[in-house]
Amino acid sequence: MTASERNHDLDFFFYPRSLAIVGISTGTGALWSAGRMYLEALELYGFKGAIYLVNQKGGEFQGRPIYPSVLDLPEAVDLVVCCIGRQHVPQLIRDCAGRGVRAVSIFTGGFSERTGEDGRRLEDEIMALARNGGVRVVGPNCLGNFCPESGLAPDYTFPRESGPVGLICQSGGNALHFVRSAAPRGVRLNKFASYGNACDINESDLLDYMAADPAISIIAVYIEGVRDGQRFYRALRAAARVKPVVLLKGGVTEAGARAAACHSGALASSARIWEALCRQAGVVPVQTMEDLIDVVTTFLFLPRPSGRKVGLTGMTGGATVLATDECHAAGLEVPPLPEATRDALRQFFRGDPGLILDNPIDISTHGFVEGIYDTLKIMQGAGMDLILVQVPLGLFLLPRDFPEAQSLGLLTDDILRLQREGCLPMAVAIHSVVTAESKALALACQRRLAEAGVPVYNTLGGAARAVSAFIGWHERRDLEAAENPTAEDDFARLCSG
Amino acid sequence: MTASERNHDLDFFFYPRSLAIVGISTGTGALWSAGRMYLEALELYGFKGAIYLVNQKGGEFQGRPIYPSVLDLPEAVDLVVCCIGRQHVPQLIRDCAGRGVRAVSIFTGGFSERTGEDGRRLEDEIMALARNGGVRVVGPNCLGNFCPESGLAPDYTFPRESGPVGLICQSGGNALHFVRSAAPRGVRLNKFASYGNACDINESDLLDYMAADPAISIIAVYIEGVRDGQRFYRALRAAARVKPVVLLKGGVTEAGARAAACHSGALASSARIWEALCRQAGVVPVQTMEDLIDVVTTFLFLPRPSGRKVGLTGMTGGATVLATDECHAAGLEVPPLPEATRDALRQFFRGDPGLILDNPIDISTHGFVEGIYDTLKIMQGAGMDLILVQVPLGLFLLPRDFPEAQSLGLLTDDILRLQREGCLPMAVAIHSVVTAESKALALACQRRLAEAGVPVYNTLGGAARAVSAFIGWHERRDLEAAENPTAEDDFARLCSG
Repeated sequence: MTASERNHDLDFFFYPRSLAIVGISTGTGALWSAGRMYLEALELYGFKGAIYLVNQKGGEFQGRPIYPSVLDLPEAVDLVVCCIGRQHVPQLIRDCAGRGVRAVSIFTGGFSERTGEDGRRLEDEIMALARNGGVRVVGPNCLGNFCPESGLAPDYTFPRESGPVGLICQSGGNALHFVRSAAPRGVRLNKFASYGNACDINESDLLDYMAADPAISIIAVYIEGVRDGQRFYRALRAAARVKPVVLLKGGVTEAGARAAACHSGALASSARIWEALCRQAGVVPVQTMEDLIDVVTTFLFLPRPSGRKVGLTGMTGGATVLATDECHAAGLEVPPLPEATRDALRQFFRGDPGLILDNPIDISTHGFVEGIYDTLKIMQGAGMDLILVQVPLGLFLLPRDFPEAQSLGLLTDDILRLQREGCLPMAVAIHSVVTAESKALALACQRRLAEAGVPVYNTLGGAARAVSAFIGWHERRDLEAAENPTAEDDFARLCSG
Repeated sequence: MTASERNHDLDFFFYPRSLAIVGISTGTGALWSAGRMYLEALELYGFKGAIYLVNQKGGEFQGRPIYPSVLDLPEAVDLVVCCIGRQHVPQLIRDCAGRGVRAVSIFTGGFSERTGEDGRRLEDEIMALARNGGVRVVGPNCLGNFCPESGLAPDYTFPRESGPVGLICQSGGNALHFVRSAAPRGVRLNKFASYGNACDINESDLLDYMAADPAISIIAVYIEGVRDGQRFYRALRAAARVKPVVLLKGGVTEAGARAAACHSGALASSARIWEALCRQAGVVPVQTMEDLIDVVTTFLFLPRPSGRKVGLTGMTGGATVLATDECHAAGLEVPPLPEATRDALRQFFRGDPGLILDNPIDISTHGFVEGIYDTLKIMQGAGMDLILVQVPLGLFLLPRDFPEAQSLGLLTDDILRLQREGCLPMAVAIHSVVTAESKALALACQRRLAEAGVPVYNTLGGAARAVSAFIGWHERRDLEAAENPTAEDDFARLCSG
């Protein structure tokens, strides 16, 4: 479906039939590379529509004609990607309005994020021109948008498959971070918007849009500041009523806020205010990019556990002790196993004294050499709410003739077998990767597990925090539903409205 | 120097002239692999003394004779590594006493760390036999010791070079974690003791020993519980007076303490008590293994900064915003740059509007394509106390013909050039590694920097916390010295005592 078959202004940013890169050049300079990189990414990623190039000097680039102006384009493109010097942007907006372009994504920086200069004035000018000309703008100072469905991507390494995640990310770098880091975890995006200074389309517009998008089942947000606090809170609350919203606030400290102002012209505020705002809006707050990805992974793949009791299955004693501390600190419980379960474990392990057969259970090298299936199977009957498997990769004494790859393969097979047979909600943390070889193994194992719908993590602490946040979200929903039985109707109305 | 040329009981654990592995076997079973792995590690790592094998069945293994008993050994070995079933350990201790063995390291588990069984009784029996027989014991339930100087290592992948770090680590797995993860960071150990249940030699003995060891300039401690709180506090305080001591406490939560009891029979206590104890003893407390490594790295390589003002040099706006938050949260300052520095930066970057030329400075792709030398050079004059360089690897839009390896090579060259020329204290965090290729690059870059004495980190947050802890340690020392001008004499007395 192209943007013109849809009915929202913002559709033109994600489903353009055609686009023009303005600022492509064969010369050198900082912005030159931006235009070329967009073109390369679109070609390699497989953008389905027409791509036009624009530069006032004309000519051609890699066999494509370069049009001197947007006005010269053979069609009114849906989207323009702007990579020209900031002083030329106002004229571009005029031309876009004149040519019937609906949407402009402005990569160019140097606007309200710069202090003591004329950037703010220039940005206001652009905004006024856009409004008068009926052109919508994302940016300036942004990476733009990603939408696998239409082949629109700022980077050709992004996954091709569309998924259920909507990402609203003020920072382009952090959007890249999210997509690339979350990919091996099985997290696929439906779309993202990296919206920079938010001179026109802002966080609230994007929240409304993604809340109403039926293909998006969870919204992740990285935000540095808001334009209109009242509206933002309403948008956040409304979105959180219809789907999970996870939010990372950048610039929560004084210096961080100053950095955010320089980065995206955002007015930031304190960590405490944001924490309270999230809680009130029913949004899950997180503190780092890694936590953002961990929580999204959990919402996507972990079935809801009945409670907070974790059966912690780990390897090496010290690592499981620290893992238990991390679970507890995150608000999860690691209760002792019932005597019957311990008996079953003792029987299975024939009294091997090197193992710790309680909760946490430390099966150490045994697990790496003989697998983990039976342990996990026995743990199913221990009255736990979920199983957390901890694989501290690269920290074993393995026989030289028993390589780590073989161990990890065994472990993965066992976890997948259990998953197929049906089991308690299960999360797997593969961490402490020391070598590049271990990292390659961990990634391969994560991909296999993720493909089967098992939530995987890079740290045990991250897994524990994410699982706890996920359970907490459900607990609050239950409480709200009990207090307000008509809430479901409200959700329905919001969805259709 | 061998143990017999030294004058401390514990020397036999680290500088044995000869050792015997008791429990080597050609059969199968959990402990079989332990004995074989010790042998393999010692051979490959290059243990300089004689290695004997003991198993009651006799025979031979890989061309080596197997002696039926320690009593049959051709010499009184300095160290016995015990890998036999726990029920046989009392007789082994008797035999060791009979043959004049000075030190036994007991890998075997199943003692006081097991509840509801006779492990505690067995451990007490071993202890009594050892005391009566003049044998010192490390363990049971431990990995044993590491000392590159004498070629003694439980793992052949450990670095060969000796260094200034002493590690006291109740958990063998965490000792492995430390050595392997810290190696690419340039951290080299003088020795470690993984001491398990601490039935004889305990945390306090090891603290006294390493405090007095002139080859050790910093002590890292992972501990789950203490045998004698009073003595431990005294040992900790005394050690912290003569060299930096960094401590990670496992089992600080209720469930974690239960896990610790199962793991090493330790009686643990709350996080708050440990925090207070560390502060009083002048010890640096940390929360994770990663923080432990980060803090040790900092003490080893970072020159003392004059204060807490960080010049934060990063790449991609969002990442630098979050990095600023992390610095601030850790107790560091990221103050604005003086106008003169900003002018110099603007001039150098010819007004490129895509960059943020304040503190944090975001030089983004520019830095990756053209290097970082000039930026860092200009930052030297900005009145900062140290420079933190943030390299969020794998999160760039780089031209396809400009690979990440080239970028990282440029960056590393520039940092090393600055280091050679003399510069402010400088720390480098290379993080957000997404692919195995990036991990390989990051490791190679870390190794190059570490070899030149530049402290490197895996996360910006970790770097910030470690640097802050390092500065805080110095600040407290200054304060103490001012309050008690004779403290230096105390240190000297303790050292010689």
